[in-house]
Order: sequence, then C-alpha cells, then structure tokens
Amino acid sequence: MAASQHESEHPKKAFGWAARDSTGFLSPFNFSRRETGEKDVTLKILYCGICHTDLHLSRNDFGVSIYPLVPGHEIVGEVTEVGSKVEKFKIGDKVGVGTMVDSCRSCQSCVDNLESYCPKKIPTYGFKNVDGTTTYGGFSDTMVAHEDFVIRIPHGLPLDAAAPLLCAGITVYSPLRYFGLDKPGLHLAVVGLGGLGHLAVKFAKAFGAKVTVVSTSPHKKKEALENLGADSFVISTDQDQMQGVIGTMDGIIDTISADHPLLHLLGMLKSHGKLVLVGAVAKLELPVFPLIMGRKIVAGSSVGGLKETQEMIDFAAEHNVKAEIEVIPVDYINTAMDRLYKADVKYRFVIDIGNTLKSSS
Amino acid sequence: MAASQHESEHPKKAFGWAARDSTGFLSPFNFSRRETGEKDVTLKILYCGICHTDLHLSRNDFGVSIYPLVPGHEIVGEVTEVGSKVEKFKIGDKVGVGTMVDSCRSCQSCVDNLESYCPKKIPTYGFKNVDGTTTYGGFSDTMVAHEDFVIRIPHGLPLDAAAPLLCAGITVYSPLRYFGLDKPGLHLAVVGLGGLGHLAVKFAKAFGAKVTVVSTSPHKKKEALENLGADSFVISTDQDQMQGVIGTMDGIIDTISADHPLLHLLGMLKSHGKLVLVGAVAKLELPVFPLIMGRKIVAGSSVGGLKETQEMIDFAAEHNVKAEIEVIPVDYINTAMDRLYKADVKYRFVIDIGNTLKSSS
Repeated sequence: MAASQHESEHPKKAFGWAARDSTGFLSPFNFSRRETGEKDVTLKILYCGICHTDLHLSRNDFGVSIYPLVPGHEIVGEVTEVGSKVEKFKIGDKVGVGTMVDSCRSCQSCVDNLESYCPKKIPTYGFKNVDGTTTYGGFSDTMVAHEDFVIRIPHGLPLDAAAPLLCAGITVYSPLRYFGLDKPGLHLAVVGLGGLGHLAVKFAKAFGAKVTVVSTSPHKKKEALENLGADSFVISTDQDQMQGVIGTMDGIIDTISADHPLLHLLGMLKSHGKLVLVGAVAKLELPVFPLIMGRKIVAGSSVGGLKETQEMIDFAAEHNVKAEIEVIPVDYINTAMDRLYKADVKYRFVIDIGNTLKSSS
Repeated sequence: MAASQHESEHPKKAFGWAARDSTGFLSPFNFSRRETGEKDVTLKILYCGICHTDLHLSRNDFGVSIYPLVPGHEIVGEVTEVGSKVEKFKIGDKVGVGTMVDSCRSCQSCVDNLESYCPKKIPTYGFKNVDGTTTYGGFSDTMVAHEDFVIRIPHGLPLDAAAPLLCAGITVYSPLRYFGLDKPGLHLAVVGLGGLGHLAVKFAKAFGAKVTVVSTSPHKKKEALENLGADSFVISTDQDQMQGVIGTMDGIIDTISADHPLLHLLGMLKSHGKLVLVGAVAKLELPVFPLIMGRKIVAGSSVGGLKETQEMIDFAAEHNVKAEIEVIPVDYINTAMDRLYKADVKYRFVIDIGNTLKSSS
C-alpha cells in the first residue's frame, strides 16, 4: 500500500510515529482515521504507555507484524467528538483505550464480558479491522473507537500514570481476580519486577495480600520493599533464600517473558496453589510431579474484558494504585525502545503525546 | 534387615508376594502385621488391583523403593477384627484400603479432608510408618489400618471390580470434581485409554458430559464407543481429526504417563478450559502462548482424600461405574506385571487374593 493510501483511506487526517520494517525503528507517519460513527468516540491522545509488546511487534518478533505499524495500546486522552448514539461519554471526558477496539459481540467470551478472549477481537494496532483497513495505535495524535471499547479514567488518577494500567495493569489485575488471589491475607509472590511486576505488587497489596518479590536482581530489593510496598524479597538464584520460601505461597504472578525454570516456583506454592504466567514466552519446561503431588496449577492469563478493565481502573483510583513511570517526549521513542529492550526503565515509559507530538506535514 | 525381622517385628503373621530388588520380580514373602489397635480395622484381603505405580515401585523406577516391597494399594476385603473404639465398621463388613494408611491429621490438607496432600501421609506400602516399621501393601493376605483410612464398599458393587476404584477411580474422579468438570453438558476429553482413562470416561459420562477419547491406538475406537460409552474418538496423530476438535473441550483428563506433546491438547480446549495431568511423567514441554491467549490452565491432581474416596465409591455404586478388569490368580503376578508394562490389559488386573493366595509356610 502506498503512503498516500494510508492518508486517504479514511476521511480524517492523523499523524503518528510508525515502524516501517523489522528494524523496529520508528519515524513520523501521516495516515488517516475514520469519521466518528454514531456509536464512536474520538479522542485527542494525551499520553501513551510503551508496552513490551510494542517492542516485539515493531521488530516483528512474532512474525505477524503489518507495516507501517503505529504501536501503542495504553492510550489516554480527552474526548473531542462523540457519535449521535453515544450514551456513556461526552466531549471533554478523560478516557482511555487499551489493547482492543472491537470484538464479535456474540461468542461466549463476548457474552461473558471477556472480549479479550474473543477469537475475532480487533487489537488496537497492527491488525485488519472489520472494514478491511489496518488498525493504528496510540503513538499518534487521535484515536477513534466504539464507545464499548472506551474506558472512563476516574478523577484523581493522574492521566500519565493511568495509561499503563490499560494493558500492564489489567494484565495482572485480571488473574488476581479470576484465580481467587484477591483475598486479604493470602501470601503471593510476584516474579520479575518490571512493568507488569511492579503493578502486580501494588494490586496484590491493595487486595490485602502479603507479597514477596522474586527477582534475579539484588539491587531491586530496596525499591521493592521501600517504594512498592512488598513485604519480602528473594533472589531466585539463591538456593538458601529459595529454600526458605518452599510451600509458602498461595499464588504466584510470573511476569518473566524469557525462558526460566518453573521447578522452584512450583516448589514455592502451597498445595493447591496457582502459578499464573503473564509473560510472553514461547515455551517452558513443566515439571509434572510437583503439579500432581500438590494439585497445583499453571495457568496463563491475558488482559481482562472491558467491564473488568473499568472495574480495575476504578479500583486503582480508589486504592491509589498507579504505574511508576518515566514520561518522555515522542522524539525519544527509539531510545526508549532500546532501553526497554535492556529492561532499563522504572517501570514504564509513557509518551507525552499531547505536548510533544507535532505534525510534520 | 534379616527376613526373620520382617516376620517378628509385629505379633501377627502375614503372608504375601514381594519384590526383592529392582528386577521387580515378585515372590512369596513371610512378614507380620501389627495387632488391631483400638481404632484399627483388620481385614482379610479378597482382591487387590495392580496399579502402574506397583510396577514402577517394584522396579525402583523412582529410586525410592525399600525392599522387600509388597505392592498393592487397591485393596478390598472383609473385616475380621475391629478395635475397641472403632465406630464405623464391624466384623463382616466389606471394606477397602487405598493408597494411604495414615496422615498427620493436623495440617491444612488434613483439616480440609485432603489427606492425600498431607506432607506426612503414610503410603500403603513401601514407606516408613510412624512406628518406624515399613508399610506392606495388598499383595498379601491381611491388612490393618486406622478406621479413618478404611472405605466402606457399598452393596451392589462387585468387590473385584471395586478394587481399582480405590486408586485409579479416585485419581480421575477427584479432578473432575475439584476442577468443576462434573457439570452435565460439558464436553470433556480423556487422553489415553488405560486403567485411569477408561474410568475417566465412565465417571465423566456418569456426570453427564459428552466424552471424546483421544488415543494413538485406532483399534481402541470400537471399544471406547461401544463398551465404555464414549461419544467420539480421535486419533491424536491424525492432523485432520485433531483439527476438527480445536476449541471444543471444556476440560481434558490426560492419563498419559510418558512424554507427549501438550500443544494440540491445549488447542482442543475452549478458552478458560482446563487440562488436568494425572499420569506420572517427570516433565513435559509447556507451550505458553495458548495458555495466555485462552486463559487456560494445566493442572496436576493426585488421589482424593478419604471423605471424597467414600463419596466416589458411593457415586460409583449408584451410577454403576466399575472398572473393567481381568481377574488373575496370584501366581500370575509376574506375567501380569510384564503385560502391564506393555499396556496389554483391558483395563486393570485384579488379583484374586482370597481364592488363590496360599501361605507357603
């Protein structure tokens, strides 16, 4: 598709930053957005978080990327236009768009408010939409989405620190809820202290759990305990420390997106405990005897549906859960991507779209 | 320990068949049983099933076997003596003893009637009992156990076909219950059609599920459909057949005790589906994306506790669930073990202890 087609396929001009190939290098990009449909909400984007998936898809790590690719699915902004039949939002509202912009509305997952598991859901960027055009994400000036896929940002939550809740936040909140790990008094472990992990600690604490952070990085201990509120910290490569936590956890949220051993994590669980994987890793070695002898489970979990995402962000506002962020200007994106690749961020980059994205056209 | 010690460490003479070393070859063995304690039940053993674990432990496959080893933990017999404080049983009752004869009674698992997950439970054979002596299993003439670890065999259930329910039966019944796979109308798959698998089919049908058998053996199809009551049968190595069942199962009971791929099994599950491993395999390769994208779980499960075992066998009597068995005389044990190793049995060997075990002393 020629560049002019991206600009002309929809009536409204739009501008963002796009990756053009598997180098993942991002550069300014003119494209277009659809008119505000009768159930659509159009927003001026103010902030957009950078998720690890943005890095993967920019670089075509999963082999499914469509270029030009405008990443970004932790989008927060202000409503500028609403369709004639929109009921939930009005101009000026502070809203967010997360990882998807549509779904089939009829499958069991959709009926159960679990649109994230709809086989026909439309991801926020890099996929074919129902009209055949490609979806573009939040590294851009505007967004348009059906009101059912728009989240209200509650008062009192800073817009920049709210952005990462729309993917990282709901990714850890949803399994804590679904797997019954949201009960006060449970002892939970969070493995890996990055974008997902630091929010898992905060939500688990907000639910009333005792939280142990499991990490390979001793230098994260002080921050985990003092800034994030974790109760204890163990180094996963320290045999003595790991020995001391055997059989003590009701559940574990494992955020590691690289190969790693599960044996000692399963060992940390009490009988009937639950290990939930939320990090995007292709495969892991599964020791079966610990599962059988302790009736333990290993589960995966993706983001929640829209209803739960709204519930999560309202809960976050109420319990003062927000992402720890480094706000960056848009022209810092490529540096940020490189730093993200090296896990050099505490804990989430958020692009200040509203103040720094200027159309080059 | 000299043979004489086995015979003299307890006051009551006992006789059975024991493996002496890792060849697993079984031969006649004189030993002894404790007196009937005040809460003990002593039974004359009538039947004992042969479990795959008996084969593993006879041959020291797990490296933990203590010789001489008298296998057998699917024990059915008749009460011959009860202790002064026994409340639940009387002489002449038909009873069973399964995989364990004692537990700590105080840990959370014990408190929750999940003695099978008690870290200090005493397996029925081949382990040190609380008095320091070794436990001996049901390939023998008598058994003595605390009444809390004795199961009542309901009227109407044939004693020989009831024996395998005490291990194989509860191993598949328990996860069907715990993981919510006991609801009418669910679509379940049973992987592997051996001792565990054929009972999984029967219990799943009794719960009202639609049941698909997944096997590598086309010759099992007729029997699965016509004799065991399965609704459909797919060959796991047939790509077209497996393609046809993608995303159709609410749950899977996987009884395979050898390495096998999980990818296509996870693919068979609907979103939020559950794959339960009950086969003793050391490790498997776990594909993570299907878990995350469908919020699926892989779990392990062992036998149930005593309360659930009694519930299972009462349910079996009520719904006419019994093991398909080949009854053998005791002197056929070694041949049976060899045939079991080759999976050459439909579907469980049961030793006719009552009529064929004769003391050689």
